[in-house]
Amino acid sequence: MSFAKKEYEFLKEIGIGPKNFGCYVNGTWKSSGPLISTVNPANNQTIAEVVEASAQDYEEGMQACSEAAKIWVQVPAPKRGEIVRQIGDALRANLQEFGRLVSLEMGKILPEGIGEVQEVIDMCDFAVGLSRQLNGSVIPSERPNHMMLEMWNPLGIVGVITAFNFPCAVLGWNACIALVCGNCVVWKGAPTTPLVTIAMTKIVASVLEKNNLPGSIFTAFCGGAGIGEAIAKDTRIPLVSFTGSSKVGLAVQQTVNQRFGKCLLELSGNNAIIVMDDADIELAVRSVLFAAVGTAGQRCTTCRRLLVHETIYEKVLEPLVDVYKQVKIGDPLEKGTLLGPLHTRTSRENFEKGIQNIKSQGGKILTGGSIIESEGNFVHPTIVEISSKAEIVKEELFAPVLYVMKFKTFEEAVEINNSVPQGLSSSIFTRNPEFIFKWIGAQGSDCGIVNVNIPTNGAEIGGAFGGEKGTGGGREAGSDSWKQYMRRSTCTINYGSELPLAQGINFG
Amino acid sequence: MSFAKKEYEFLKEIGIGPKNFGCYVNGTWKSSGPLISTVNPANNQTIAEVVEASAQDYEEGMQACSEAAKIWVQVPAPKRGEIVRQIGDALRANLQEFGRLVSLEMGKILPEGIGEVQEVIDMCDFAVGLSRQLNGSVIPSERPNHMMLEMWNPLGIVGVITAFNFPCAVLGWNACIALVCGNCVVWKGAPTTPLVTIAMTKIVASVLEKNNLPGSIFTAFCGGAGIGEAIAKDTRIPLVSFTGSSKVGLAVQQTVNQRFGKCLLELSGNNAIIVMDDADIELAVRSVLFAAVGTAGQRCTTCRRLLVHETIYEKVLEPLVDVYKQVKIGDPLEKGTLLGPLHTRTSRENFEKGIQNIKSQGGKILTGGSIIESEGNFVHPTIVEISSKAEIVKEELFAPVLYVMKFKTFEEAVEINNSVPQGLSSSIFTRNPEFIFKWIGAQGSDCGIVNVNIPTNGAEIGGAFGGEKGTGGGREAGSDSWKQYMRRSTCTINYGSELPLAQGINFG
Amino acid sequence: MSFAKKEYEFLKEIGIGPKNFGCYVNGTWKSSGPLISTVNPANNQTIAEVVEASAQDYEEGMQACSEAAKIWVQVPAPKRGEIVRQIGDALRANLQEFGRLVSLEMGKILPEGIGEVQEVIDMCDFAVGLSRQLNGSVIPSERPNHMMLEMWNPLGIVGVITAFNFPCAVLGWNACIALVCGNCVVWKGAPTTPLVTIAMTKIVASVLEKNNLPGSIFTAFCGGAGIGEAIAKDTRIPLVSFTGSSKVGLAVQQTVNQRFGKCLLELSGNNAIIVMDDADIELAVRSVLFAAVGTAGQRCTTCRRLLVHETIYEKVLEPLVDVYKQVKIGDPLEKGTLLGPLHTRTSRENFEKGIQNIKSQGGKILTGGSIIESEGNFVHPTIVEISSKAEIVKEELFAPVLYVMKFKTFEEAVEINNSVPQGLSSSIFTRNPEFIFKWIGAQGSDCGIVNVNIPTNGAEIGGAFGGEKGTGGGREAGSDSWKQYMRRSTCTINYGSELPLAQGINFG
Amino acid sequence: MSFAKKEYEFLKEIGIGPKNFGCYVNGTWKSSGPLISTVNPANNQTIAEVVEASAQDYEEGMQACSEAAKIWVQVPAPKRGEIVRQIGDALRANLQEFGRLVSLEMGKILPEGIGEVQEVIDMCDFAVGLSRQLNGSVIPSERPNHMMLEMWNPLGIVGVITAFNFPCAVLGWNACIALVCGNCVVWKGAPTTPLVTIAMTKIVASVLEKNNLPGSIFTAFCGGAGIGEAIAKDTRIPLVSFTGSSKVGLAVQQTVNQRFGKCLLELSGNNAIIVMDDADIELAVRSVLFAAVGTAGQRCTTCRRLLVHETIYEKVLEPLVDVYKQVKIGDPLEKGTLLGPLHTRTSRENFEKGIQNIKSQGGKILTGGSIIESEGNFVHPTIVEISSKAEIVKEELFAPVLYVMKFKTFEEAVEINNSVPQGLSSSIFTRNPEFIFKWIGAQGSDCGIVNVNIPTNGAEIGGAFGGEKGTGGGREAGSDSWKQYMRRSTCTINYGSELPLAQGINFG
Repeated sequence: MSFAKKEYEFLKEIGIGPKNFGCYVNGTWKSSGPLISTVNPANNQTIAEVVEASAQDYEEGMQACSEAAKIWVQVPAPKRGEIVRQIGDALRANLQEFGRLVSLEMGKILPEGIGEVQEVIDMCDFAVGLSRQLNGSVIPSERPNHMMLEMWNPLGIVGVITAFNFPCAVLGWNACIALVCGNCVVWKGAPTTPLVTIAMTKIVASVLEKNNLPGSIFTAFCGGAGIGEAIAKDTRIPLVSFTGSSKVGLAVQQTVNQRFGKCLLELSGNNAIIVMDDADIELAVRSVLFAAVGTAGQRCTTCRRLLVHETIYEKVLEPLVDVYKQVKIGDPLEKGTLLGPLHTRTSRENFEKGIQNIKSQGGKILTGGSIIESEGNFVHPTIVEISSKAEIVKEELFAPVLYVMKFKTFEEAVEINNSVPQGLSSSIFTRNPEFIFKWIGAQGSDCGIVNVNIPTNGAEIGGAFGGEKGTGGGREAGSDSWKQYMRRSTCTINYGSELPLAQGINFG
Repeated sequence: MSFAKKEYEFLKEIGIGPKNFGCYVNGTWKSSGPLISTVNPANNQTIAEVVEASAQDYEEGMQACSEAAKIWVQVPAPKRGEIVRQIGDALRANLQEFGRLVSLEMGKILPEGIGEVQEVIDMCDFAVGLSRQLNGSVIPSERPNHMMLEMWNPLGIVGVITAFNFPCAVLGWNACIALVCGNCVVWKGAPTTPLVTIAMTKIVASVLEKNNLPGSIFTAFCGGAGIGEAIAKDTRIPLVSFTGSSKVGLAVQQTVNQRFGKCLLELSGNNAIIVMDDADIELAVRSVLFAAVGTAGQRCTTCRRLLVHETIYEKVLEPLVDVYKQVKIGDPLEKGTLLGPLHTRTSRENFEKGIQNIKSQGGKILTGGSIIESEGNFVHPTIVEISSKAEIVKEELFAPVLYVMKFKTFEEAVEINNSVPQGLSSSIFTRNPEFIFKWIGAQGSDCGIVNVNIPTNGAEIGGAFGGEKGTGGGREAGSDSWKQYMRRSTCTINYGSELPLAQGINFG
Repeated sequence: MSFAKKEYEFLKEIGIGPKNFGCYVNGTWKSSGPLISTVNPANNQTIAEVVEASAQDYEEGMQACSEAAKIWVQVPAPKRGEIVRQIGDALRANLQEFGRLVSLEMGKILPEGIGEVQEVIDMCDFAVGLSRQLNGSVIPSERPNHMMLEMWNPLGIVGVITAFNFPCAVLGWNACIALVCGNCVVWKGAPTTPLVTIAMTKIVASVLEKNNLPGSIFTAFCGGAGIGEAIAKDTRIPLVSFTGSSKVGLAVQQTVNQRFGKCLLELSGNNAIIVMDDADIELAVRSVLFAAVGTAGQRCTTCRRLLVHETIYEKVLEPLVDVYKQVKIGDPLEKGTLLGPLHTRTSRENFEKGIQNIKSQGGKILTGGSIIESEGNFVHPTIVEISSKAEIVKEELFAPVLYVMKFKTFEEAVEINNSVPQGLSSSIFTRNPEFIFKWIGAQGSDCGIVNVNIPTNGAEIGGAFGGEKGTGGGREAGSDSWKQYMRRSTCTINYGSELPLAQGINFG
Repeated sequence: MSFAKKEYEFLKEIGIGPKNFGCYVNGTWKSSGPLISTVNPANNQTIAEVVEASAQDYEEGMQACSEAAKIWVQVPAPKRGEIVRQIGDALRANLQEFGRLVSLEMGKILPEGIGEVQEVIDMCDFAVGLSRQLNGSVIPSERPNHMMLEMWNPLGIVGVITAFNFPCAVLGWNACIALVCGNCVVWKGAPTTPLVTIAMTKIVASVLEKNNLPGSIFTAFCGGAGIGEAIAKDTRIPLVSFTGSSKVGLAVQQTVNQRFGKCLLELSGNNAIIVMDDADIELAVRSVLFAAVGTAGQRCTTCRRLLVHETIYEKVLEPLVDVYKQVKIGDPLEKGTLLGPLHTRTSRENFEKGIQNIKSQGGKILTGGSIIESEGNFVHPTIVEISSKAEIVKEELFAPVLYVMKFKTFEEAVEINNSVPQGLSSSIFTRNPEFIFKWIGAQGSDCGIVNVNIPTNGAEIGGAFGGEKGTGGGREAGSDSWKQYMRRSTCTINYGSELPLAQGINFG
């Protein structure tokens, strides 16, 4: 059997064939659920077929994973780090092909596809260092001959449910940390990017096998909502890391909490860029373009709202509309393309519905606003002038649609920035230190990511990634995000022979 | 108007009269809700009357509090620390009276009442130091001329809902930290300990007023479930810290999450002490007594399950039953009393129902098992021999009832310890380093508090207090618990004039 | 016996008489060394007499202190924190009198005298919090059944040698931290401020005694170089914290190192303020005045060099010379005085010699430059225009003499800032974020204190205080300065029964 | 030209020839100093020749290095981490050959030679993670509109002087951290291990060159005391990391301090193992053997003193003497060899002198005590019964000589452990938690490394390595050792327009 198109042949090098098992359970590839096709968003033609997970596959995978957890937890953290290092090296050896697959199946342009894989590699390297720094604390006890420790121990199994827009980076953020922390990983990738799920898993699996470790330390399922629900309800999974919409995330959270599990949520963003009157306009315009059009507006950190100081409104809008009109739209694998297709036909339909809503709520289309008739899911990058109070501005329309609005003062701009239910990312462009420090301070942006003179997107892995309010409150990647993948215990050891009590209490 | 009894006259010194307003809103004492009586659990006679909060009081309080939040957030953290220091000093000056009130209204013995107030004082001192150490991070950026910061900013308002068993300590854990972190506090104390709520609030209020700060920085309501629900639903309150049962906590959490708020939960415990065959039995017996009988079994950290190595079962049980029989039961304010009343008549009824269930599930009463007929809510401290698999053993019966059971191996003991839905506290008594370190390690206790050779209760404020699983996952008091009272942002500042992208991406 | 002057009578309230023992050894006041007089720098008249320490007093004190160290080390850190809290409270109760004594004996103006005592109080409060946070670490081991800990244990005894310019604050920085860390303190104050030494020690002693702790936990000597040398050579003192000139500090260091002891050095500063062309000139001028004239130029953080962008040179100099001429010089205890006397006649002579050198090296006196003939040690605040390359500009002239110079570019200003042997403090005045962040970055100021839009002086206790290069490298007060007062150990505990080796080595 | 022996041919694969330039300066290999031969300690025959550095080479290298420092400091830390990652990978590709060279030239057995190189690789991986975690702090300011930061910036150039016993691992500890911290490295290896110096440098150089970075970021000199002295005196080198004897280290320190530079010292150890009466004797004996005989007693962490509880003295000594007699002595490259030669003839002579001194001070030879007549520098592993008070027991005899002594109590054992001038490593063998926790606590071992049930040697890189007292106080490898390679600054930024002063001072 061979691929429908010659240009897909490169997939063989990363373990993908025309038809693929969609589950890696108990260290073997198998699956007995529905057969699906995965398509290229640039033309909606089939790339390859995948057999998704059945409920039975899920159960088999989870049983093996539970067993593997008992072994993995006993591997010292620095040794777990060595495994993650090897995963990073295996990815590095396949960077180009893997990046190409990400572009092909997700639809983002090639530099972004490769950048996404590079981010997983960076995470591996970061996690290796972390594997010797998952530090607890020795805390002074108020009682003689007592030692107080704060210990961090693995949770056991971490469930990771990822979305189509970052089909491997988000897995990387979660899995690299979860693994060095001593957890097995159960992954359900997006239903529309199964090949990325499979290719990524094959790389992890190869490393586990080479090191004679149970493959079920990393268990992966291609599948849809059914598998997601199974993970949410599964008491064997103390932590579920979910990336997706606020609506679905909230439902997952309530299911997981009901069984006293924990969630790490990365939900919707509705990210604003503020341009103050002293901003470097050229820098701001380039940043807005990257932030609003990049990944076809399908990043959680995509800039969706542009707040411009009224005195420079025209100076910003004019060049911005100009560059929007010059954006090269086309096959994401082609050199020079800046804007690829939306991920699915449904996304394109949602774009069309969104434009209708925008118009009905008083929005004025400055450029774009229409789809491109073709086999693929292409749309025109769109700028809309609209009131900050319009209902649609509070929502996350997952497409390259940018709302622009004016403001008079810094305080007003911050208020608009903070007026939406989401709290992921935000940026200001200014050279005024007072605004810079107020923006990142107590009365500034209420988001988890707060930038100055850079776009809303493009986070580095060394910081914690995630947002407040409707964005769910989780933090991934750097800083002390790892603590979410472990359980903390406050331990007090009495090594003497007396029993003094805290707070000087005398009992009996 | 004067108190029903002369012995209550001391209450005047801490601002309590025979009839009291139950709300401190907008810096004044007022209230227009139902009039209730608060009673002494040792005799069920009225101590004083309190007018609870109405919905209107609540709204008035919250509006003022929201305004105060804008002021408080601008007070530099070390200055906020100075306010908390003064609160601690004011408490110190009233330690005896305040401790006496806690004993009187809650029913715990006097040393515990005073100890509870001391704990609030300790928290104040701790928070003062913290006010100069709420540190963010400067993180190396991968981009030249970029600075990456992790900032911690106040949330605004923290809602604190506390339970009767620690009517002021839990408020202290939360409020001291919340205040230095820059948050206003909205407190709803337990409906049955309004006098403690009022007395505590008066002390805080006096300090705020002396420093010319708005009283509504600290807003308090005496009230019941209605006020609790209002807090849970209030979008002005980004964080709700709740102490109570797993069942109610879960409901609060779902309400708060629905509006994208956060919860800090301190829910049920079901805490075991394991006695290994090499344990210091005398130390273990004293510890079990304190942990199981202290506060009449109404601590969240009360020892409810005693796991004894089969080879020393009799050696442990015999002296334990002995000391149980000698426990002095009576007025908690009387010197020498070890066991006061349960907090309410309902608690006593639940005890009786619990004993019936125990018996019907095969439990064998070794001592106690009955109530004491009197005006008060006294019961006999009870030891029950029962299977670890009995349903009732999975639940938290809030009374001095201890389940004892045998085990053969360390691994079995850990498994029993971890087999309940709750995950608060746990202890082992042993001198074997292998067991000690395994107990606190990845395959040991799954609780938030993991002790060795001390009881399950009696935590120090320097460590983080709280538990996993059904206990809710929150952490209060020491360590980095303060982070829960702040919002974190990852800030990247470009101070150069170029726009390099993370992961080396090249866009446009 | 009574004081020479009525205005000194207030000293009795803080334990000072007309004639005083200068040693607190083994919990008692005694001394058998030379009798000295301490004088008021405003008139060089005797305030009181002090009997300094003899070699025998020293030995007696150290023997008792060594014994006390064995007890103090066993007091749990939070209990040590409680002692320090009480010291802070005792100071708070004597703030006005104590501040007055500092001004009287040292010569600084009253707000600065009171501010100095307030700083010790702040340090006490800070140290109380710290006493529950002297945290070690639990580090992941690469070997199974091994636990790796980083422990911090007390050193035993810390020697503190302080200078006249901050006769109690520097002791406070050191002693508060040293004490909570579990060390006894041996203090030698400056020979010319013995009354501050005695008064401070009396307060500490009263707290120790009230708590039934050995007084020799805090041992103090009034004395000169002989006692200093004894401390430097004493093998019972693992750490010597020394504040003074680079020259003497270096000698102390070499003596202490010779016996494998450690030093914490706070030596000379030579601090510059850079005024960029976009600076808020009014803010800059006020800051320079405070930084250069405050404490009569006798702070280690005094601004000694003013670097002004050539384009605004006149705009800065003119108002600066103006305010210099209006500075009110006089009795430091008098309200409104901004500039008190130099501390000693010798200081005044050094000022005169310095002015001569300045002139001979091409310096041009813009204002001041002469002493004031009087009983006291007053001099005129002085501004000198001089080349940054003049030899005298590299030295620390401990008087209110400010060197001003021009620069053309930010880079040049930084280079001049960094061109002196000292590295304590530095400031820039600018509103340009590029300069702000470069100034605090890798290619900016090489000092330990790097300010923006505030003077070189006036550090907060929450940060680490100290400097690089000739300033000695020590850090006092906040941040993790406490680590210098403890010894660190990396502990690995094998609790299993195997002997795996690090780096996977196989031996035998 | 070819190697003297065929068995040295493998050296070509790692860039070593029969005659080699000994300096890597300004990115090229050259040298104009004396020609020396490096010999195999197993037979004292020449391996290869090396031209050492001249004073002119040194100056040329330092000038280039100073220039390179300006470039390297501007490379963002995570990018510097990527360079170190590549160094680790290049070493990994040459692990066997490089390990073989270490054994050949230093004389340690092959598993130790390979283990040493593996340690450098581990350090590289660790440093990569660290490159995103060299975190400063954001500290709450007491002043409104002020931001306080603790920044960590590179020092510029770090000088590293290493010893023969770990000819590449110690460089690895220092260079990996120094490089990610943003410093250039100037390395002088031991005069007797120049080939390791050259081979290591070639690997680093290849990576720098591949990345188009100046080779002089890493500058290396083969040479003797002259080069060492030049480094110590060079004001361009703010930090000198020195490994060697306490005597030489002290001299280096005084020279460096004189010019206000900093030292990081790893000096002599005199490490004891304590065997308590409840110890696992078999585990203890194996550990002592590894610790005392490994690397022929030439580790700084070699166990030199064995303290045995009097009740088990014979039980420990008998099997220990037995295994000593079975130790296979011979060519370190041969499989099965446990004890290779001492590093030089001089070392063998020192061993002989030491044995004479031991005897003259009352030491009784239990086994060994003599050299082995051969071409190489072999000696018999030696056990000596001696008083803990003998003078020689206070010194570090760098050879496989173990002093054994008895003790009665834990306290006595700790006192003996602490009674030497050195403070590097120490171990106890016991199963008693009281002893375990006291041993690592305030009144236990005073060393920097404090072990339980493992030998004194074999540290993991995740912890800080180094010791107290005569060992010099430096810390290398893990934990926060990186802070020594950076300079800290406390930065306060006023972004408002007011000038509030700390401690509430009002000036003028």
